[in-house]
Amino acid sequence: MSANRFGHLFQITSFGESHGQALGAVIEGCPSGVTFDPAILKSALKRRRPGQHLVTSSRNESDDFEILSGVFNDKTLGTPIAVIVRNHDAKSSDYEKIKAEPRRGHADDVWKMKFDHVDHRGGGRSSGRETLARVIGGAFAQMFLSDVAPELIVHALPRQIGEIAIVDSDLCLSDSARFYINEGRWNDVATMMTKLREEGDSVGGIAELQIENAPGGLGQPVFHKLKSDLAGAMMSIGAVTGVELGGGFSLASKHGKEVHVTSDESVYGGIRGGISTGELISLKVAFKPTSSILDIAKRGRHDPCILFRALPVIEAMAHLVLADHILWRRLDRN
Amino acid sequence: MSANRFGHLFQITSFGESHGQALGAVIEGCPSGVTFDPAILKSALKRRRPGQHLVTSSRNESDDFEILSGVFNDKTLGTPIAVIVRNHDAKSSDYEKIKAEPRRGHADDVWKMKFDHVDHRGGGRSSGRETLARVIGGAFAQMFLSDVAPELIVHALPRQIGEIAIVDSDLCLSDSARFYINEGRWNDVATMMTKLREEGDSVGGIAELQIENAPGGLGQPVFHKLKSDLAGAMMSIGAVTGVELGGGFSLASKHGKEVHVTSDESVYGGIRGGISTGELISLKVAFKPTSSILDIAKRGRHDPCILFRALPVIEAMAHLVLADHILWRRLDRN
Amino acid sequence: MSANRFGHLFQITSFGESHGQALGAVIEGCPSGVTFDPAILKSALKRRRPGQHLVTSSRNESDDFEILSGVFNDKTLGTPIAVIVRNHDAKSSDYEKIKAEPRRGHADDVWKMKFDHVDHRGGGRSSGRETLARVIGGAFAQMFLSDVAPELIVHALPRQIGEIAIVDSDLCLSDSARFYINEGRWNDVATMMTKLREEGDSVGGIAELQIENAPGGLGQPVFHKLKSDLAGAMMSIGAVTGVELGGGFSLASKHGKEVHVTSDESVYGGIRGGISTGELISLKVAFKPTSSILDIAKRGRHDPCILFRALPVIEAMAHLVLADHILWRRLDRN
Amino acid sequence: MSANRFGHLFQITSFGESHGQALGAVIEGCPSGVTFDPAILKSALKRRRPGQHLVTSSRNESDDFEILSGVFNDKTLGTPIAVIVRNHDAKSSDYEKIKAEPRRGHADDVWKMKFDHVDHRGGGRSSGRETLARVIGGAFAQMFLSDVAPELIVHALPRQIGEIAIVDSDLCLSDSARFYINEGRWNDVATMMTKLREEGDSVGGIAELQIENAPGGLGQPVFHKLKSDLAGAMMSIGAVTGVELGGGFSLASKHGKEVHVTSDESVYGGIRGGISTGELISLKVAFKPTSSILDIAKRGRHDPCILFRALPVIEAMAHLVLADHILWRRLDRN
Repeated sequence: MSANRFGHLFQITSFGESHGQALGAVIEGCPSGVTFDPAILKSALKRRRPGQHLVTSSRNESDDFEILSGVFNDKTLGTPIAVIVRNHDAKSSDYEKIKAEPRRGHADDVWKMKFDHVDHRGGGRSSGRETLARVIGGAFAQMFLSDVAPELIVHALPRQIGEIAIVDSDLCLSDSARFYINEGRWNDVATMMTKLREEGDSVGGIAELQIENAPGGLGQPVFHKLKSDLAGAMMSIGAVTGVELGGGFSLASKHGKEVHVTSDESVYGGIRGGISTGELISLKVAFKPTSSILDIAKRGRHDPCILFRALPVIEAMAHLVLADHILWRRLDRN
Repeated sequence: MSANRFGHLFQITSFGESHGQALGAVIEGCPSGVTFDPAILKSALKRRRPGQHLVTSSRNESDDFEILSGVFNDKTLGTPIAVIVRNHDAKSSDYEKIKAEPRRGHADDVWKMKFDHVDHRGGGRSSGRETLARVIGGAFAQMFLSDVAPELIVHALPRQIGEIAIVDSDLCLSDSARFYINEGRWNDVATMMTKLREEGDSVGGIAELQIENAPGGLGQPVFHKLKSDLAGAMMSIGAVTGVELGGGFSLASKHGKEVHVTSDESVYGGIRGGISTGELISLKVAFKPTSSILDIAKRGRHDPCILFRALPVIEAMAHLVLADHILWRRLDRN
Repeated sequence: MSANRFGHLFQITSFGESHGQALGAVIEGCPSGVTFDPAILKSALKRRRPGQHLVTSSRNESDDFEILSGVFNDKTLGTPIAVIVRNHDAKSSDYEKIKAEPRRGHADDVWKMKFDHVDHRGGGRSSGRETLARVIGGAFAQMFLSDVAPELIVHALPRQIGEIAIVDSDLCLSDSARFYINEGRWNDVATMMTKLREEGDSVGGIAELQIENAPGGLGQPVFHKLKSDLAGAMMSIGAVTGVELGGGFSLASKHGKEVHVTSDESVYGGIRGGISTGELISLKVAFKPTSSILDIAKRGRHDPCILFRALPVIEAMAHLVLADHILWRRLDRN
Repeated sequence: MSANRFGHLFQITSFGESHGQALGAVIEGCPSGVTFDPAILKSALKRRRPGQHLVTSSRNESDDFEILSGVFNDKTLGTPIAVIVRNHDAKSSDYEKIKAEPRRGHADDVWKMKFDHVDHRGGGRSSGRETLARVIGGAFAQMFLSDVAPELIVHALPRQIGEIAIVDSDLCLSDSARFYINEGRWNDVATMMTKLREEGDSVGGIAELQIENAPGGLGQPVFHKLKSDLAGAMMSIGAVTGVELGGGFSLASKHGKEVHVTSDESVYGGIRGGISTGELISLKVAFKPTSSILDIAKRGRHDPCILFRALPVIEAMAHLVLADHILWRRLDRN
């Protein structure tokens, strides 16, 4: 057990403070012989960067990673894979102000209560920068999945940005097989974002995790149902305040005859008895509006809606859960 | 790692098929010297029984448990606590029918896909009867908490039963410090339940988990945020399809200024940065309508709304998570 | 992590005090579809009983076990296997004396220091009776191994009983494919044992664990080398005071040219780089003389040399380690 | 579970191939507020370097470490501590030869069998260089212990170097509170070492681990007895072939009356019932002669007896086990 480890068999250990020397991850349990594909890692890191909006050009290069171990001649060795990203542009002067005044909506005070100190340099491990480690780990999980379940596709889609709902017809599939908000709808979003930025305000949002072509049989019957591990994974992301599978909260007021007889299988969200059925897995993830925007010190460097940056983090956590349960599946039968 | 174990430090291992010899739990990590209070265990087991509705008299006695180890002279020994409940009234003849026809909405087919067999005697580990082990484990967690955090109170409240919403004024506090639906509102509920039973139908529902007087500092910053462990725990319960903390999904369309400046702390649900703040923790848990009611074979033995029986299970899982994190807290600082 | 759990993937959780209601084990991680063979379990339990000497008739029946879960129609279900053995003939009056005077060489005082209480009914979890759980778990591991590695054979041989050395020519293979001390040498042993019993004395001994036809590739390179997990397993048995692999302590004074060039592979004991080579694995295990014999209260019920009873425990722990690493092997490669 | 992780609560994850970019460790579970003392880490790393003999001047500087996370203002943060050491002087040309011919006594062939590849650059994770991670982890464990158990002292002493036995009078205590072989005896050792080096030969050895002033109550009754965890830790070191506690193998031929009545407590090696008694803990560790010396390619860069370099590794593993069990002790009682 560790506060900083995720996974049963395919595991990542996340380390690094947001304004320390470096952040990184150690990936354990990745079998030997997995094809290392740097493009997967670069792409995920780039999408996680601040200031990235969908269908807009990127302001920044991706974070530079260094692989310290576990990969040789473009194959995984079966040994721990250690990857780090150095912290460069930490403006610690900005954070000196925070030292004096704890930030509304942040974890500085609870952190102090817990560990008897605050790393005032930027939230330490509570910072969104920690998600770098998740994205790194998720990229290796994705490489493993590409080898053993090549049909499997994981998408995190925007479904709501503040008051703006995003329906299927608002989305288009890019060349890189990613869903984006199409131009017409994006104008609405961009207008709202600009206004929020000017006002120093933010909004929450809802993402939908879709897993296509997941093999059946993933998940364990009791405490590690696939829905349980996915929900725990999503709720471990900082700003997430809710998770629902398939019909979710709407099922509360439904009748059994309607759900189990009339409805199609999609009400189950692709998971029954805690185990994947082979159908589309669908999970909704709610985000609260970020509080960082409220800090004068940080305004301009933070996005008014973190949903876009969170999409690759959702995908990374899903890849990790799937890699874990696909490995676990090897132990099911004699 | 195990499919049947829950907890990092205060752990339960759940075992037993719904129609095997016995079900039970082994509780590990419970410190020595905890006062054993059989009333806590009996009460939780009784509330979990089928056919129990709030404010109605019980039809059945509680399940009889036997403590095999770990308790001596009314104190825990610091050794594993093993508790079993025998299966008596399994009508296996009922289940022979199931052998022929897999049940809509059940896990028989996915279980077959996973383990290459089906225990047709009643769902095996997917059955709701497995929650017995959770309730047993939760009772010991509660005893531990009674000793180390006597002010802490855990309540699972009904908030929606099918179309019927339950607000605070619909609830009353009983002598045993439990919330029940008051008489006026109960008439509405009972009327609906009777009708559902007659029609062989069921409804879903929503429960609210309230944790009062939780110490601050519970939860770990990254993957084992208190909200993550609670969400994973709730989603490990069979019929649960959604979980939300504090403002939950409603925060998606809210603005940061509204949430973090205007609102009171309750939007956070008592957890910030993944760590308990010391305020009321509030988590909503959505249930789909049970599918068991649809089986002719089982009609009459199952409740039209499993929410009531699920309340002690929610409380048990919450007690387990809290006991775990209160122990973990002992390791935080030098 | 748990004090009472052994194994990474194929795990047992041991519970039960020596004079409580029952002892038992929960086996987790045993795949579905393993053939349940009660003879393996009965035989191991019988050999573990007090008063059993090799080539002598048994005084007692084996402990009666009850399987509570995890097995159906003579196959494992892939769910936790819970097995219990009830405690019958605990003479608690004998133990009342112990309450007053802590026993020399026992753990009563350290247990008190640790848990702030002593379960004076017979050593609680420190008692040799706890090994029942190991033998139960080991029997299921053996069943799993019978299915997936049918050529594999695990033997624990007596190599020294007090001053009496046992060499290969002192051993004979019985019908049941177990090694016993042959008649000529047994006379010497029996004479010594009778004398020791009369004098209320005991002796130590050395056993050799031999694993034939172990598949190559078992063990993990760093902390879970096969030798490390085997050594930890053996040293977790109460009276064990030493473990050596292959050439063991004798290699300390040897030269590299002699060991690595001249010698045959047996100096490595079948494990190189922590990983099984496919050759015979050989591990020696030293036992101190038991202290129980010194208690007036217990004289007559305890053996002057626990080595014989420990042999099935050594085998059980070896089966557990092997089952664990054979499962782990499924995760090595992509 | 992970092949590369050690510890239950105070854990290290070791990563890095001997000829990859870097080696390192992530330390998890170290409480916040531990005083960071770089001298402890530097000293341990220096003693682990090749070419270091006791009472001789060092040929090399210590490995340069970099702390990436977990320490701020000379205190641990309670977050994961990541430390790396870069690989500089890997002469990969030397190792190209190995590619063609697998090395006698090495793990190249078993590694190939396991992972279906060989990292021919120098043994990968099987190399002694991996012990760097252990020494780093052990240094942080030692810092933690300095704060919470300042009286505790861990020493690994040479007891045999090939045929040369080292008794107490051969040892002297240095200014830095470390035991060294005194000048007279060192002459014998140095003469033998020189000869071995000339002949391209090596010898084994025996070390004694002494733990002074360990608190009582460390260790858990069943599978994680202190002796079990220590034995597993020692046997996880590459060249170790045997471990004995207190009287060890010599107790096999002893009588109970002699051991438990006549002898002093030292026969138990400071651990009874698996739990530390508060007396001196003594464990002997046997090493086989290294096989590296036999490789022409590597001659001159390896020591004829690895015992000296192994001493800080033994101490590191002991510090890790002790830190782990001292933390675990916080969970024993209510």
